[in-house]
Order: sequence, then C-alpha cells, then structure tokens
Amino acid sequence: MTKIPYRFYLTEDQMPKQWYNLRADMKEQPDPMINPATMKPATEEDLYPVFCKELAHQEMDSKTRYVDIPEEILEMYRIFRPSPLIRAYNLEKALDTPAKIYYKFEGNNTSGSHKLNSAIAQAYYAKKQGLTSLTTETGAGQWGTALAEACSYFGLPLTVFMVKGSYQQKPFRKTVMQTFGAEVIPSPSNTTEAGRKILETDPDTTGSLGCAISEAVEKAVSTEGCRYVLGSVLNQVLLHQSIIGLETKKAMEILDVYPDVIIGCAGGGSNLGGLIAPFMQDKLTGKADPRIVAVEPASCPSLTRGKYAYDFCDTGKITPMAKMYTLGCGFIPSSNHAGGLRYHGMSPILSKLYHDGYMEAISVEQTKVFEAAVFFAKHETILPAPESSHAIRAAIDEALRCKESGEAKTILFGLTGTGYFDMTAYASFIEHTMGDYIPTDEDLQKGFDGLPKIPGLQE
Amino acid sequence: MTKIPYRFYLTEDQMPKQWYNLRADMKEQPDPMINPATMKPATEEDLYPVFCKELAHQEMDSKTRYVDIPEEILEMYRIFRPSPLIRAYNLEKALDTPAKIYYKFEGNNTSGSHKLNSAIAQAYYAKKQGLTSLTTETGAGQWGTALAEACSYFGLPLTVFMVKGSYQQKPFRKTVMQTFGAEVIPSPSNTTEAGRKILETDPDTTGSLGCAISEAVEKAVSTEGCRYVLGSVLNQVLLHQSIIGLETKKAMEILDVYPDVIIGCAGGGSNLGGLIAPFMQDKLTGKADPRIVAVEPASCPSLTRGKYAYDFCDTGKITPMAKMYTLGCGFIPSSNHAGGLRYHGMSPILSKLYHDGYMEAISVEQTKVFEAAVFFAKHETILPAPESSHAIRAAIDEALRCKESGEAKTILFGLTGTGYFDMTAYASFIEHTMGDYIPTDEDLQKGFDGLPKIPGLQE
Repeated sequence: MTKIPYRFYLTEDQMPKQWYNLRADMKEQPDPMINPATMKPATEEDLYPVFCKELAHQEMDSKTRYVDIPEEILEMYRIFRPSPLIRAYNLEKALDTPAKIYYKFEGNNTSGSHKLNSAIAQAYYAKKQGLTSLTTETGAGQWGTALAEACSYFGLPLTVFMVKGSYQQKPFRKTVMQTFGAEVIPSPSNTTEAGRKILETDPDTTGSLGCAISEAVEKAVSTEGCRYVLGSVLNQVLLHQSIIGLETKKAMEILDVYPDVIIGCAGGGSNLGGLIAPFMQDKLTGKADPRIVAVEPASCPSLTRGKYAYDFCDTGKITPMAKMYTLGCGFIPSSNHAGGLRYHGMSPILSKLYHDGYMEAISVEQTKVFEAAVFFAKHETILPAPESSHAIRAAIDEALRCKESGEAKTILFGLTGTGYFDMTAYASFIEHTMGDYIPTDEDLQKGFDGLPKIPGLQE
Repeated sequence: MTKIPYRFYLTEDQMPKQWYNLRADMKEQPDPMINPATMKPATEEDLYPVFCKELAHQEMDSKTRYVDIPEEILEMYRIFRPSPLIRAYNLEKALDTPAKIYYKFEGNNTSGSHKLNSAIAQAYYAKKQGLTSLTTETGAGQWGTALAEACSYFGLPLTVFMVKGSYQQKPFRKTVMQTFGAEVIPSPSNTTEAGRKILETDPDTTGSLGCAISEAVEKAVSTEGCRYVLGSVLNQVLLHQSIIGLETKKAMEILDVYPDVIIGCAGGGSNLGGLIAPFMQDKLTGKADPRIVAVEPASCPSLTRGKYAYDFCDTGKITPMAKMYTLGCGFIPSSNHAGGLRYHGMSPILSKLYHDGYMEAISVEQTKVFEAAVFFAKHETILPAPESSHAIRAAIDEALRCKESGEAKTILFGLTGTGYFDMTAYASFIEHTMGDYIPTDEDLQKGFDGLPKIPGLQE
C-alpha cells in the first residue's frame, strides 16, 4: 500500500465541477419555511425581496441532485482551492492512538475559513442579477471577511453588521474587512429599526447573530438594488459548502480510505453540512454507514438541548420561520463564550437529519476546547479557530477511546479555520482567566417561551 | 500546451530531499567572518559558544554543494510543505499585462511565513546535540512564532527577545508565541547587560533587530546548555531556505516555464536567498541568465544606500563581524516603518553576489508598498505581509512596464507571508495616517561612522 501523505491535494482536473444537494436524497424532507406575513409555506417568490432570484431558487429546490458550478465561481475556487486533506500523523503519535485521523483544512485563505466557498457563490449570483449592493451579518468575522473578499472581487459594495462582542474583541477583523472595501457596523446599531428596538430593551448587549441578521435584512429590503446574504443555516449555503465534502470524499477515494466517524463543529451548520454531504448521501442511499457527529459549544447547545420547532432565523422576527433545533430566537449566548458558534438555531436540513437519527450531537465546554486547540497547535503546527477546535476536541476524545479499545478507526474531522484573530481568547486561556458557561434549564426556558405560535402547526 | 493551474503543488515524492549551498558554485567567496576577540577570521570552533556544532559547521562550510535534509526535518516539512506555486491570473488580468506572473506562497503555516523552514532545522540540530534551551530575537514576529512552533515540537524551552516596537504594535504575535510555550521579552530589556546599556543611552527606543540579537546572544552564552539561533542573514539560514527555490524550480520545470525576472523582498536576505538559490546557480554556472531583483524598504536601504564593509551583526557589538552591505549596526529604522525588513545589514552571501553584479536592488516607499498590498489582496484574495508586499510592488511595476513594452515576460516573486498580524499597519494605510520615511544622507552617515576598525583590513 502506498504511504498516505501528510497533505493531499487534488489537482485542478480532479476538483468537483458540481455541488451536491443533500435534499435530493432525503426520503423525508425538512418542513417548509413559513412566511410570517401569510402564515403559509413560503414560496420562491416570497424570498425575492431578501435573496437574489437564483439563490431563492437554490433555497427552495429540493429536487436537483447535482448543481453545475458556474465557470466564474470555479475560477475563484481555483485561487484558493482545493484545500488539503491532512493525515494527522503527529497528533496520532502524540495521542499514542491506533486511530487514523484525517482532517480537511479549510483555513488557508484570507477569510481564514470555509466561508469563502459560499461567499463567492452568493456574490456572483447577486452580481449576475445586476444587484448593486449587499448586506450581511458576521459573528466571529470569518463570514464577513469572506464576503468582503468576494464582493471586492465582483465589485459589489457591502455593509457588514458585526456582532458587537466580536467587534470589540476582534478589532483587526474589522480592518481586514475594510481592507477589502466593506463598511462594518457594530450590531445592534442605531442605523436600523431592529437595532434600535434591541438597544432600547438592552442597551449593554454584546449582540448576537440573530440581532445582526435582523439589521442586515432590514437594510437590504429597504435599499434599492440591495439584497441580504447569509453565511450559514440556509439550504443554499449547505449546497455551496458541499464542495468541502466532495473534495474530501474524492481525495479519500484516491487514497483508498473511508471514514468510520465524521466529526464537525456546528454553529449554523455550514461547515458540518458541507463536510458530511456526500457521506450522508452514502448513508441515505444505504451505501455506507459512517457515524456522523456534530459538536457544539455547551454555552449554545441548539441540537443537544434545543427544541425541534418552528422559529424565526433572527432576533427581530422579520425573517421567515424555519423548522429547526433552536434555543429560541431571543437566546443570546454568554459574552464569555469566545468566537463563533453563537447562533440560536441550526440548519433545517441538519436538524431534520438529526431528528431522524442520521447523526449524533455532543456539546463541549470552552476550556476543554481550548485545551484541545493548544495541544493540536503544538503537534500539528496549525493554530486552529476556536470554532474548529470543537471538532478537534471530539476527534481527540474519539482517538483516546480508540486507544483504550485498541480499535484502529478512521476518524475524519473538519478543520474549518485558523485562530489568528482569536488571540484575545487564546490569551485568556493561557492566562487561566477563561471560564465555562453552561446555561441553566431556566435560561433555556426563557428562549423557548418566545417560540412563535403558528395556527394549526405550532400552538 | 497544458493550461498552467492557479495553484501547483509538488507531491511528497517530488519534494526536495537536499538543501542547496549556493557558496559551492560561487567562484569568489564572501569574505570570512572576523572574530572581534582575535581580529582574525573566525573558525568553526569560535562559533560553538553561540551556535550548536552542526549549525556552526553549516555556517562555515562553503564546499558541500548539496546537504541531505535529515529525515526528522523532512517529516516536519511534510506537515506544511510543499508550498504552492501560484499563477497570478487575476493580478495579470487586473493589470491588463502580457506578463506571466508567478509567486511562491510561503504563508500557509501558522508562523505566517517562510521562517519555519529554518526554525525547524535549527531546533532539530540543537535538540540532537542535547542542548536544553534556545534564545532568539524577532522583529515582525514571524521568526519568533516559527521558532516557538519548532521548539514546541522538539520540546525545547525558548526565550524570544521581541523588538519593542513590534511587541507594542503586535500584542497578538506575543500570544501566539506564548501559545506555543515560548517566553517573550520586549527588547531592549533590563534582563541583559546589552539591553541595559542601550536603554541607558536611549530609554524610549522602540528597539531594533540589532539590539534584540545582542540580548539573545548574551543570554545564550551566559546560560548552561543554551544556544542562540537567528532567522536570517546567516549562511546556514540561506542553506535551509533554499528549499523555497528548489521547490519553485522543480515546479516550474514540471510546468515547463522559466522566469525572466525573479523578485524577492530583502531584510536580512533569508527569503530572497532561499528563493533565488537554484536560479542563481544557473547564473553562476552559465546555464541561464534571469534578472534577480532585491526589494528593500526606502526606510532601511542596506543594499541601495549602505556600505559594503565589515560590521557587527548586532547593535551591542558582541557577535563576529561580517563583510556585508550595512547601514551600520547602530542604525535603527524609523518606528513609522511597519513590519519587518528592519535589519541594518544584509546576508554576506547576497551582499557579495550583489557587489559582484549578479543581482540588482531597488528600494520602495512604505505607502507604495501598502497600495500594492491592498491591490493584490483584492485580486488574489491573499492578505500579504508588509514585508512580502515589497516584492509585490516591484512585480506589479515590472508587469506594468511589460504592458507598455508589450513584452510577455515571466515574472516570479516570493510571497513570503501573510499580514494577519499587521492590521495596525493596514489600518493606518486605510485611514491615510501612514507616512513614508527616507533617511537623509546625514542620518546614514551616523551609522557609517560607527563601522568597526579592523587593523589591516578596514581602517
């Protein structure tokens, strides 16, 4: 057998030319989005004021299994893709485990994460439709950076509403976005109705993705030629992110390996959904049965402690409602919690798959995550993003179980990004000032109490 | 003809297994180092108190053309190498130039630069000799980070003296080094005799590489089992960094292209010397005659305005003296100048080659450099380090000249690293508060006045 290399790159010829739409293989579909204005299932046209037409179509299209990636997008992909599939030889050695650990590393681009995969697609379709500006929100800043890059490339002005906590914790992220020409506004702000309302109730809030989404959507629908784009949760985003899984699967086929366990961090689900897509296809079509594990922060545990219910995608309650695992759109994670994975809900596709038993979910505490991050950095030389480190934690724990049981499992995890802009969090871990925060049942109940009532569907 | 891909990676099998020692092909050798204690040429043994034996040997060995890379180092290289050779299709398009632009991108590792190539080698040889700790200096922080990674990997405690200006400008760099377990001290400090002396003369100094080297060397020679390592300037460093050029040349051979012009930024010469090594070999042996261009900051212009003379490698005058282009070891560049490339001297090998007419040198102003950096980022999606952006500026100018002349030249430049930790400098550029600084002839004369006198050699 050929030795598996440390880093494996597909050639340009081997790179996927199509995205994969997971819904085409789901026997049971996610429940439809509900338009809050009509309380009826939303139509593609209902989405046009918010999303550009092609993206609205991708959002609703559950039938097309493979979607051709436009040549203009492929060209941008070639600038930073393929990403490497890395065999974690050093980590395996340090853990003294018989497990074989692989990770798909999406951090080697300036956005520092996988987010660029969808940003490019969304900016492209907007430009193609003749739109003249975009808005979005960003939490940890990776999505905002990715979209700023993509908009700069396609010449589209961009306004980014950045969760205030991150804006303060990561001033340099703001500068990166500005370098690529974006306007960056800390959220909640007084530039929107939604922001002003939230500030009235809680002037000292550090914000949340939910708030920032409300503001970005409001600005988009009230500005001529402007649309809103979102970096996670949506079906269209999972479609674009399938490039991660498709590349991974292709690489593993060439290397003649197949994962027993696939692990991904989960905030809104963009990385996890993308990484697992073709493996979940195997599961749905009975070709293989890998374990699939979502890892979320104990401080924002939508899958492990949330409710599977209809909820708004934003705090201001102006978006359509989606059936998903949610902590309630009013839930704001502790400001103590570093980095991303702060979203109250979870991709409706992943929520449905989890609900139907196709995947598992676990939650991990912040200090345990950073412990894994530093261990990983020292042995694999990559400084991981806090988000990605949730998956590292779970992969290490799985590898340690293999050590006990003597099983030589093949573990695959998604290393979504780098932590260069998270040094404040790393410093607090190193200086032992970092704490953990686990919401109480009462904390969560407050979020659940705010779930919307939908006549005949959710009372 | 096959289309050249955007990103080209060698496979593990194709990666170089030997470094190339440029001196073996130089008809005229650089002048020998002088030991200030004896005022005679330094011997290998003279260097033992400062460097570990194998590195002292590599420093002095001008004969061995190819040096086998130890398997343990190759293993570490495989974690982050090969680096991609990128065809800058987007940049070419944006410039509307007939030139074909390639760059070797060394920034996709946590040190953010090529520095890891030599850090691994130096930490490995130190560990192999049974040393128990290392010291070094760092300017922009990339070398310190690289060495912290390498030392963490080999289990060697490390003390980093970080130029105070950078320490203040880049607090997060410090945290990265600490994450990898290094102790970081702003220089000049009062922990060494050399530091205290410099602080006495100029308590408000923002420091320089020269000061930091003095402190690191002093700590190394006064601590049992401790040695000093340096990230640039030295012959050993150029040897290790030849991996950059060797990979580049191999990749270009496979793609069937050869550069007409090779451009690299030059501080101490580690990147430039590494990138050009095998191409300079072609020049020295008459196989090819590419133009080779060193680009340095107008604020620290050692090649373009320095003197070719014997000088100390450090401000405290405790190191051996080397014949090189120098601004005088007392020269400290304006604190206005961002990032690295702050060293007063230049690699003796490169100095000799420049002196003998094998390469050109130009200097560029800071704001022009950042203008190029932002332009490059917007089109190539990579946020470049300020240091690397000197080469970008020169490559863009060369490509624009090609546009005028209609020549389809093949331009190769070294993109040494990423700018994630340089956002303060980017912010000042974006906010138009960045200035340029060009030393006057009087400023430079002060530095020259301090050049050492060596009886019979330099009066």
